[in-house]
Amino acid sequence: MAKVRALVLERQHELALRDVDLPLETGPGQVKIRIHTVGVCGSDVHYYTHGRIGPFVVKEPMVLGHEAAGTVVEVGEGVTHLKAGDRVCMEPGIPDPNSKASRLGMYNVDPAVTFWATPPVHGVLTPEVVHPANYSFKLPDNVSFAEGAMVEPFAVGMQAAAKAKIAPGDTAVVVGAGPIGTMVAIAALAGGCARAIVADLAQPKLDIAAQYQGVIPVNVREKNLTDEVRRLTDGWGADVIFECSGSPKAWETIMDLARPGGVIVAVGLPVNPIGFDVSTASTKEIRIETVFRYAHQYERSIALLGSGRVDLKPLISETFKFEDSIKAFDRAVEARPTDVKLQIVME
Amino acid sequence: MAKVRALVLERQHELALRDVDLPLETGPGQVKIRIHTVGVCGSDVHYYTHGRIGPFVVKEPMVLGHEAAGTVVEVGEGVTHLKAGDRVCMEPGIPDPNSKASRLGMYNVDPAVTFWATPPVHGVLTPEVVHPANYSFKLPDNVSFAEGAMVEPFAVGMQAAAKAKIAPGDTAVVVGAGPIGTMVAIAALAGGCARAIVADLAQPKLDIAAQYQGVIPVNVREKNLTDEVRRLTDGWGADVIFECSGSPKAWETIMDLARPGGVIVAVGLPVNPIGFDVSTASTKEIRIETVFRYAHQYERSIALLGSGRVDLKPLISETFKFEDSIKAFDRAVEARPTDVKLQIVME
Amino acid sequence: MAKVRALVLERQHELALRDVDLPLETGPGQVKIRIHTVGVCGSDVHYYTHGRIGPFVVKEPMVLGHEAAGTVVEVGEGVTHLKAGDRVCMEPGIPDPNSKASRLGMYNVDPAVTFWATPPVHGVLTPEVVHPANYSFKLPDNVSFAEGAMVEPFAVGMQAAAKAKIAPGDTAVVVGAGPIGTMVAIAALAGGCARAIVADLAQPKLDIAAQYQGVIPVNVREKNLTDEVRRLTDGWGADVIFECSGSPKAWETIMDLARPGGVIVAVGLPVNPIGFDVSTASTKEIRIETVFRYAHQYERSIALLGSGRVDLKPLISETFKFEDSIKAFDRAVEARPTDVKLQIVME
Amino acid sequence: MAKVRALVLERQHELALRDVDLPLETGPGQVKIRIHTVGVCGSDVHYYTHGRIGPFVVKEPMVLGHEAAGTVVEVGEGVTHLKAGDRVCMEPGIPDPNSKASRLGMYNVDPAVTFWATPPVHGVLTPEVVHPANYSFKLPDNVSFAEGAMVEPFAVGMQAAAKAKIAPGDTAVVVGAGPIGTMVAIAALAGGCARAIVADLAQPKLDIAAQYQGVIPVNVREKNLTDEVRRLTDGWGADVIFECSGSPKAWETIMDLARPGGVIVAVGLPVNPIGFDVSTASTKEIRIETVFRYAHQYERSIALLGSGRVDLKPLISETFKFEDSIKAFDRAVEARPTDVKLQIVME
Repeated sequence: MAKVRALVLERQHELALRDVDLPLETGPGQVKIRIHTVGVCGSDVHYYTHGRIGPFVVKEPMVLGHEAAGTVVEVGEGVTHLKAGDRVCMEPGIPDPNSKASRLGMYNVDPAVTFWATPPVHGVLTPEVVHPANYSFKLPDNVSFAEGAMVEPFAVGMQAAAKAKIAPGDTAVVVGAGPIGTMVAIAALAGGCARAIVADLAQPKLDIAAQYQGVIPVNVREKNLTDEVRRLTDGWGADVIFECSGSPKAWETIMDLARPGGVIVAVGLPVNPIGFDVSTASTKEIRIETVFRYAHQYERSIALLGSGRVDLKPLISETFKFEDSIKAFDRAVEARPTDVKLQIVME
Repeated sequence: MAKVRALVLERQHELALRDVDLPLETGPGQVKIRIHTVGVCGSDVHYYTHGRIGPFVVKEPMVLGHEAAGTVVEVGEGVTHLKAGDRVCMEPGIPDPNSKASRLGMYNVDPAVTFWATPPVHGVLTPEVVHPANYSFKLPDNVSFAEGAMVEPFAVGMQAAAKAKIAPGDTAVVVGAGPIGTMVAIAALAGGCARAIVADLAQPKLDIAAQYQGVIPVNVREKNLTDEVRRLTDGWGADVIFECSGSPKAWETIMDLARPGGVIVAVGLPVNPIGFDVSTASTKEIRIETVFRYAHQYERSIALLGSGRVDLKPLISETFKFEDSIKAFDRAVEARPTDVKLQIVME
Repeated sequence: MAKVRALVLERQHELALRDVDLPLETGPGQVKIRIHTVGVCGSDVHYYTHGRIGPFVVKEPMVLGHEAAGTVVEVGEGVTHLKAGDRVCMEPGIPDPNSKASRLGMYNVDPAVTFWATPPVHGVLTPEVVHPANYSFKLPDNVSFAEGAMVEPFAVGMQAAAKAKIAPGDTAVVVGAGPIGTMVAIAALAGGCARAIVADLAQPKLDIAAQYQGVIPVNVREKNLTDEVRRLTDGWGADVIFECSGSPKAWETIMDLARPGGVIVAVGLPVNPIGFDVSTASTKEIRIETVFRYAHQYERSIALLGSGRVDLKPLISETFKFEDSIKAFDRAVEARPTDVKLQIVME
Repeated sequence: MAKVRALVLERQHELALRDVDLPLETGPGQVKIRIHTVGVCGSDVHYYTHGRIGPFVVKEPMVLGHEAAGTVVEVGEGVTHLKAGDRVCMEPGIPDPNSKASRLGMYNVDPAVTFWATPPVHGVLTPEVVHPANYSFKLPDNVSFAEGAMVEPFAVGMQAAAKAKIAPGDTAVVVGAGPIGTMVAIAALAGGCARAIVADLAQPKLDIAAQYQGVIPVNVREKNLTDEVRRLTDGWGADVIFECSGSPKAWETIMDLARPGGVIVAVGLPVNPIGFDVSTASTKEIRIETVFRYAHQYERSIALLGSGRVDLKPLISETFKFEDSIKAFDRAVEARPTDVKLQIVME
């Protein structure tokens, strides 16, 4: 155990930047990483404002932060693909490699996963962390720490894009242009879609998404989304619908957006069961996919950033110093429509 | 037009066996078929008892029957794969071959499909019918007319099995052991499942399904289905769930039946939207498939009957003469739990 | 029949720009199109220089050209999605909609396909043509005729990309940077690849491909491709290999380029059987896909051009007037490494 | 280390039943198993007759045997799903759970796999063995040890069937009716095929395969396989071809057996590269799959045995006592066409 500084969620509504005891020995197969940048995620903010997310309740003080990039400073026994000095970003969830789900390649749905800043596991808003080398991914020289810390939320979009099984040139609809919806739209386009029709009520969010080539913004205060999708697809419907609003209302008309044989990927998580019209879905033989975090998406995401085919920098709205972490969280609570991602730089 | 005898649904609740005028010229690409056996389908019965199915309303007298097998008696111009004397069964739905859905290989979701005994299109409870040769399928010598007339309902099960993308040795759960649930269970087993756990409240239905090797019947009056599935899968869950009851209640706990990464195929059609718990589905990354009739399933179904790998004869509960057609329908209205399929023989 | 001017391949080595009789009545389901731009394809040139391609032999004078865009000038009975004045590009191959392959959605492998400028079917280097409306695709306002005429060769790349079943962020290798290899690389990137490692012996071809973001050119005169792929993938191998050279030599080492579980898409067509090392492929469980022209790729290709996510204009090397058609073909025969696509403008 | 009796391959051509030192401590996550039945596999025999298989050379004495079933006698720390007394069969190959291939769910192509009776790893023709619990699978009461020891070769067939992505009712062709071809045919039928057209030169092998419902034997000394497949599929071709002969000759005409869009699964491993006609394959857009051992097939195989949908007992040709092991191997060397599987019983 070492005494280190960290951003601690003491309890609901109470943050402190203070010293805590954290384990910092680098065991076999692990690396020690000096954290450089950490993004503020909606789930971090939700623990701050609500003290819980579903069954996960903050009962003990917990270090926040799970979207991180940094530099390897020490390498444990048996680690060969990383060395001190390598710049990396890290997957926050660590599965049991011997679980059935992991062995099948679906480690994200392994119930044994421990995930940074998910009670009772500490996050990484602290200068150093020890992590499995297998879940630490080298950044190319042309990908900054700031972009590296964006890989985590982008991986969520990539998982959704992968589940859709996009065929090259597909037309997507993204319902909801919040941070996740925007990530999904970018991933869907990078993942093969020709167009992503992005729908939201908030024009500033649409304006941010519309910076990306292939995005067709639709302000649903002004236009009927179903009509727009029909117009843009000659009445046929879209190939893929990404539901990212989590709104039960979105599900009422979502079948109208899809073409016969199309797919709906449920990314937003409504609190209660939504109404699902099986008969209408059947008429078009619509498929529904659901997603849970991501698996095997980090290297793919980094490859897209490294090749320049995806640029996430326009989504970084503001950067805070570590000593201003609480300020960063309070700004996040404001939920300004022009804010996509706030980041905290440690050094 | 020819004046021929037919079983006519005059209006809701009123059947008549009488002469009607039907077109019987064999055009190019068509064959004329002498009908031998016609199955009584739940939809035929529903038109009889309710006068409508959703948007399809019986406004004019309509000949019933769409599960049929017979003998080719005349062959139209350009037909090469069939000749007079061939024993065939027929797909009741005819799409527009030039529609977008048809060209993509999904002719079943082509809105232009005309379907026997779906208002205002006449069915085939009449001695002869003219039909496109492309939708008439030769029966092997070892497949009887009675079995040939079972291909239509079996194709529904086959479509569900195909959509599931069964991996060899999968474990399936079939919720609901009515005629369709039973067809689905048989198709799922033939389609690669090692086991089909079939659940129902009615023991006679379960007894019929349990004749098939690989079926594990669960009477949900006596046992908790979730517990049974967990027990039979060592707590992991089933690979594929076929929802065939159409009951909103089934959807409340259906996610508990599936393994991580499993699939639910919605075969039963609830009248109203059901409650779909997106969050729970997401935790396991469950996929939902929907089905609409079938496409490209006739030849596959006939091949399974012909090879002896599927035997549908145990499902034929009783056979009526054509002149007793009304009696057959009145028996079907009784919905005896021991009745799976009633058939009418024309000659 | 109408007497119209056309570029006619009289026989091997002999072209003439002269009047021919062509049928120009617009039947039901057809449109008449005033041709604007026609690309010169390798197959056109091959008929010119060799008089045949495999079993297809030029026995009668044949109009060349099959990569075409133009303007609808007349609309046949029953055509609703196009009207006079619409700018379109056209699929050159017309299948039998009632064939088994077409009904399954694979019309490209229907043996009954008739294809422009494939003996004995005339091509479209002539001012007007009549074509099925279903195989004529409207161009958005921001897609020029020149780009519209590029859709045909791009669709070949799209078919290859579709067959690969690219997962978002995959790494591709494209062996051979000729016109087709370049199209494939662009389609693979648009279709979800993060990177396309493009290999060739000719630096000018690599320079053209390298204009596209995500392309990593490898001159195999200077570097060993296997080593480069290993280096760029940390020893793991590429997800998808597109073999576009048609060279038997490429197949000798191609398995070394793929990761375990990777796929090789055979686009180039070697004249004779190549040596396929089943044992080495098996060690990695490599999958091989083959492609034949394309199916359902026009609308997808046009969507990618229309959204600006794909720009094919850098591949148009030079444009000729219709009266200089023979000059265009003689230039194509030169096979300059800096030439990707030569086009002929009719009006 | 414990001194135990074992069947040892001293060197090429020389077997001995003698005492050897083997490690028999049960570590964490492991189980100790009393071996009951071991099948004699072609690879065991090949090491005996040739002293090597490709790069794997017998340099030190090695215990043979890898198709095994037995009873758990001791359970290591942390093992929860097995207990002493459980009857099990075991996967002979153990991957590194942290390798990239394993994490992706493809542990069979992990180069780090250690495999019983593959030099320098000892096999299990010895009374006891210690093995990871994760790769030891409980047998249902109605599956005998003899059948349990058949799971290993059957899993090879299951992997091939899984790779084919069989659609329910497909028609398969199996080229070669040796032990593996027969396993593949049975797995293909269990995995959803309606029919398996099995081709071989040896009538006794065909007679054994023909016991299984759905198998259509074709003696290629008497009939032309291509003609038979055409006849049985109305000229369309088979959906799936399993090449199990490993003969280069089979590859010369194999494309003629497949339907447009069909798949060839290469199971047999020719020593040298075979001639692959890319152009002909492309005309039909044929897909080729390769297989390497199996992954995740044990539980599926056991489920098929347990449900009675697959019966492998007819393939057990003769059973030998442990003390007659050498006799069993010498009989296997004879390669009688009527022998499918020889087994050795330990107790």
